[in-house]
Amino acid sequence: PDTVPLTRGLPIPQGISASTFHMVISELKTLLGAQHVELNDAELKNGWYMQHPNTHDMMPLLHSEEFIASAVVYPGSVEDVQRIVKWANKHLVPIYPISMGRNLGYGGAAPRVRGSVTLDLGRRMNRILSINEEDYTCLLEPGVSFYALHEEIQRRGLGDKMWIDTPDLGGGSVIGNTLDRGVGYTPYGDHWAQHAGLEVVLPGDDARVVRTGMGALEGANTWQCFPYGFGPVSDGIFSQSNFGIVTKMGMTLMPNPGGFESFMYTFPDESSLAPLIDIIRPLRISNILENVAQLRHGLQTLSVKGLPRSTYYTGPGPIPQEILSEHLSRTATGDCAWVYYGMSYGPAHIRKYKLDVIDAEFHKIPGCRKIDPSKMPADEYFWSRDRIASGTPDLEELKWVNWVPNGSHIAFSPVSPIQGKDASALYELAKKRHAEAGIDLMPAFCVGLREMHLIVEIVFDATDEGVRKRAERCLRDMIDDAAKLGYGEYRTHLALMDQVAATYNFNDGALMKLNNTLKDALDPNGILAPGRCGIWPKRYRGRGWEL
Amino acid sequence: PDTVPLTRGLPIPQGISASTFHMVISELKTLLGAQHVELNDAELKNGWYMQHPNTHDMMPLLHSEEFIASAVVYPGSVEDVQRIVKWANKHLVPIYPISMGRNLGYGGAAPRVRGSVTLDLGRRMNRILSINEEDYTCLLEPGVSFYALHEEIQRRGLGDKMWIDTPDLGGGSVIGNTLDRGVGYTPYGDHWAQHAGLEVVLPGDDARVVRTGMGALEGANTWQCFPYGFGPVSDGIFSQSNFGIVTKMGMTLMPNPGGFESFMYTFPDESSLAPLIDIIRPLRISNILENVAQLRHGLQTLSVKGLPRSTYYTGPGPIPQEILSEHLSRTATGDCAWVYYGMSYGPAHIRKYKLDVIDAEFHKIPGCRKIDPSKMPADEYFWSRDRIASGTPDLEELKWVNWVPNGSHIAFSPVSPIQGKDASALYELAKKRHAEAGIDLMPAFCVGLREMHLIVEIVFDATDEGVRKRAERCLRDMIDDAAKLGYGEYRTHLALMDQVAATYNFNDGALMKLNNTLKDALDPNGILAPGRCGIWPKRYRGRGWEL
Ligand SMILES: Cc1cc2nc3c(=O)[nH]c(=O)nc-3n(C[C@H](O)[C@H](O)[C@H](O)COP(=O)(O)OP(=O)(O)OC[C@H]3O[C@@H](n4cnc5c(N)ncnc54)[C@H](O)[C@@H]3O)c2cc1C
Ligand SMILES: Cc1cc2nc3c(=O)[nH]c(=O)nc-3n(C[C@H](O)[C@H](O)[C@H](O)COP(=O)(O)OP(=O)(O)OC[C@H]3O[C@@H](n4cnc5c(N)ncnc54)[C@H](O)[C@@H]3O)c2cc1C
Repeated sequence: PDTVPLTRGLPIPQGISASTFHMVISELKTLLGAQHVELNDAELKNGWYMQHPNTHDMMPLLHSEEFIASAVVYPGSVEDVQRIVKWANKHLVPIYPISMGRNLGYGGAAPRVRGSVTLDLGRRMNRILSINEEDYTCLLEPGVSFYALHEEIQRRGLGDKMWIDTPDLGGGSVIGNTLDRGVGYTPYGDHWAQHAGLEVVLPGDDARVVRTGMGALEGANTWQCFPYGFGPVSDGIFSQSNFGIVTKMGMTLMPNPGGFESFMYTFPDESSLAPLIDIIRPLRISNILENVAQLRHGLQTLSVKGLPRSTYYTGPGPIPQEILSEHLSRTATGDCAWVYYGMSYGPAHIRKYKLDVIDAEFHKIPGCRKIDPSKMPADEYFWSRDRIASGTPDLEELKWVNWVPNGSHIAFSPVSPIQGKDASALYELAKKRHAEAGIDLMPAFCVGLREMHLIVEIVFDATDEGVRKRAERCLRDMIDDAAKLGYGEYRTHLALMDQVAATYNFNDGALMKLNNTLKDALDPNGILAPGRCGIWPKRYRGRGWEL
Repeated sequence: PDTVPLTRGLPIPQGISASTFHMVISELKTLLGAQHVELNDAELKNGWYMQHPNTHDMMPLLHSEEFIASAVVYPGSVEDVQRIVKWANKHLVPIYPISMGRNLGYGGAAPRVRGSVTLDLGRRMNRILSINEEDYTCLLEPGVSFYALHEEIQRRGLGDKMWIDTPDLGGGSVIGNTLDRGVGYTPYGDHWAQHAGLEVVLPGDDARVVRTGMGALEGANTWQCFPYGFGPVSDGIFSQSNFGIVTKMGMTLMPNPGGFESFMYTFPDESSLAPLIDIIRPLRISNILENVAQLRHGLQTLSVKGLPRSTYYTGPGPIPQEILSEHLSRTATGDCAWVYYGMSYGPAHIRKYKLDVIDAEFHKIPGCRKIDPSKMPADEYFWSRDRIASGTPDLEELKWVNWVPNGSHIAFSPVSPIQGKDASALYELAKKRHAEAGIDLMPAFCVGLREMHLIVEIVFDATDEGVRKRAERCLRDMIDDAAKLGYGEYRTHLALMDQVAATYNFNDGALMKLNNTLKDALDPNGILAPGRCGIWPKRYRGRGWEL
């Protein structure tokens, strides 16, 4: 639906009276300028990906008024961010920073605590502060998207020299994605590993600005070259946390490798998964397979065409294998259980060396087929992967969200070794839970250097409460099943953060105790993004906020 | 000298009476077993690298009794470490953990605060807990040296499959070196970036054990595959800090690249430094130059032969260029101002591609000579670099410590972009300060991916107070000069930590304020390694401990 009414009224944060809230909002308007503060008191507007809302999650898993902001504020500078932090400390208002809020599948723009004041950093703080064409680095503000960075590189005529690394959707914020430890698909796909230097506003009542790494040295010319600096490396504690508001981040850029070539293999048997993964592992660790490639289930090749599921099947439960095979066999890809999308980099003769090794190894799997790119129509999904793995932002991936009406999605994202037995175990448990929930299973293995992120996307109709409940149950069951087998999520949806955090339970939750200690030291008033990643400030702890 | 008397007696820590100290040491003996606690009450024994002392720095920059332990304790288990931490909290005794204590050039085994009780973790906790030959990872205790890890890999018959990355000296601890963010010389040379997972005993009075990353998930099988886990990444705050005692660390191992080939180029003119560095930068960022190679000054090619300086020159001040040239011209390397030691990896035809590019580029420098390895005698230093860049630990590098009698050394280690102008600026300032101090200049640029560590080693006679003072002055001046130009050290000696930390001064020392906040939260009693990396616990702050 395009708009959703606010049946529960303006979501004023807990512990603050309506009149006080309106007073402190006036104060905030005085501090920032009235035009930079918006109350969320009308209705929830959805819209599509590129015009996403910043007040809530346009793909709600829970009730649509659960994770919503009371107001949105648009700081225009680091000083503005400091003003907001001081204001929040003074009045004990929970604030929730987003860079752009396109965190779809993990909560979108929504805050964890209903009624938080959302800091939309990206709207006004969206400058590319530098692109260094000699060091292959850049320095960004929160509002710079992968698209914007890519375009600016082209505009400066540097497109032939340097690449960015983009996730499957290019509309997100480089900072937002990286802080949530997102992944892309070139050799620079581990975004967190590729960042260099943060500027952070701390949540304490003096709202101190810290620069990490070499940025702590006044006048340093190495802030983006060397990620560590001297003394403790504190960057990590600002990722997937609620310990600070990042106002600048450095990022490395990939030099043009001097050539590239996408390739695609299909495998007919579902049971090829384990042996294939075992073939991939040594090739990946030794960088013969060079990028964070995706090994996708056949169903995704169909769903990414963007047609609704009802085009193929209208019965209940997961789409049957025969139906899937039948429709797949009519596509350019042909019928298959698994598709591997990869890319080789470098000059032609260097690529040939690697591609030959890969070809010989992959063909050990019965029925393996190498798909000839020249046979792929221009609108085939293959070319989207080609663009992304060569650093060009894209939006094709959005299409599978159309699989069901009012398509929303949420991801199950466990990490495993690149081992056949682990791939099978995770695939089997997902299959079982999907069957129980009557949901189509769409798994993709994103293969990092020594681990894989399995991404299972559950696509659901957000307006159907029953379906939402089934999706949530399916997710929660998979998280628990996986944890029992030793697998944990790399990232999760707002609604599941407490559950996922609780699976990281070694020594009676020692890591969360450490997180809590740091939270209390850095944010004694507990104003910043309470509950994010399962970390609750002292004022909230033990009061049943966990979901 | 082999032994140094303790003229100031047993170094009992500040604020504890002698009788109390002896009482609490008895208690510690009861807790750990008397044989695992040694008082440092006899004399300071030096010894050579492989039998280094653990009570003090055998290469003292300050007075030999400045940085010394009152006692050394040998925990045999994580539980022992916890016992010691609880004991230290109970009695407010400063403790200082070392893995092996071979941190020569940066303080050796010495604690920052005189009279600290040193935890020699490595003596008894020295197991290789796992070597995973499929994932190319290992899990280590603090006492595992680069030699020991290398030997175990050979012993298991895995030498052909996987490599380690070793610093120039192989006797150090993998954990100790990595926590101090040391470097080695294969493509896996950034040790901190290559680690995966820590187990840490926190310094609070409950001595809680935390596992970071996936290790926080009970039963995880990805602790060494995926470095991040869920929520904040806290690993970084345990490197170059005093926030915890690391009892286990995971490390990735490098797959055998299928071939390797060392190469060496010499450049006759001192002034070639800047243009050469500018040639190196794009080759390095694009991985044509693949390893952390060293660009060394000609003098080091002479000094690493291990003969004393007096063999070549007995006059005052730095060795004159003519004398250096004359002696160098008689070596296999020939006369030169700079020597580049690199390595290319992979099968022969892949190496050839890269080596040809490098050769054409390097030959743009007038007088550039490629040295034919087959002309290098077996005992040439070239082969030491060859071993190290292919993962075989070595000790040759120790030889230049013989340059002066009672040879000790201390390093100036600033970070810069890989830019000619930066290399020149740092080289010139070092040269100026060395000339003033009358010290031979031995610079080596260790070229990382987007930055270089310049390592300038000052070799001095530790028994000559005048020389020590000059060395210290020279170092302190270089640190200040460099900071003014925007360069900071990546690591430093105990005696210089306060000075270096103070150069990281952005926004009135905001980073140190953050460090202090974390220190007070994690170690409220201030027992763990007070002063390390310039971080002083509350009990010490503002009492003039800084040097
Ligand atoms: C079809 C589809 C495909 C996708 N594919 C990928 C993929 O390939 N890889 C991938 O990584 N993701 C993927 N996603 C998920 C998501 O779209 C991206 O990760 C996106 O980049 C995240 O949104 P954002 O960048 O706008 O971050 P934001 O929404 O701005 O930030 C994410 C979270 O990080 C925190 N945060 C953000 N900025 C700050 C700050 N400055 N200071 C402090 N905290 C901050 C906040 O808690 C925020 O909620 C996909 C989503 C969809 C729908
Ligand atoms: C000739 C020469 C060449 C050298 N070349 C190199 C080189 O190429 N690269 C390089 O990196 N270094 C080099 N060094 C420096 C040094 O020898 C190595 O870095 C060495 O590995 C450090 O000693 P260690 O590993 O025994 O660490 P340790 O001395 O055990 O540890 C170093 C410090 O880290 C902290 N620490 C150690 N273990 C723990 C723990 N478990 N928990 C908490 N804190 C801990 C302590 O503060 C300790 O003082 C060189 C030195 C010399 C003399």
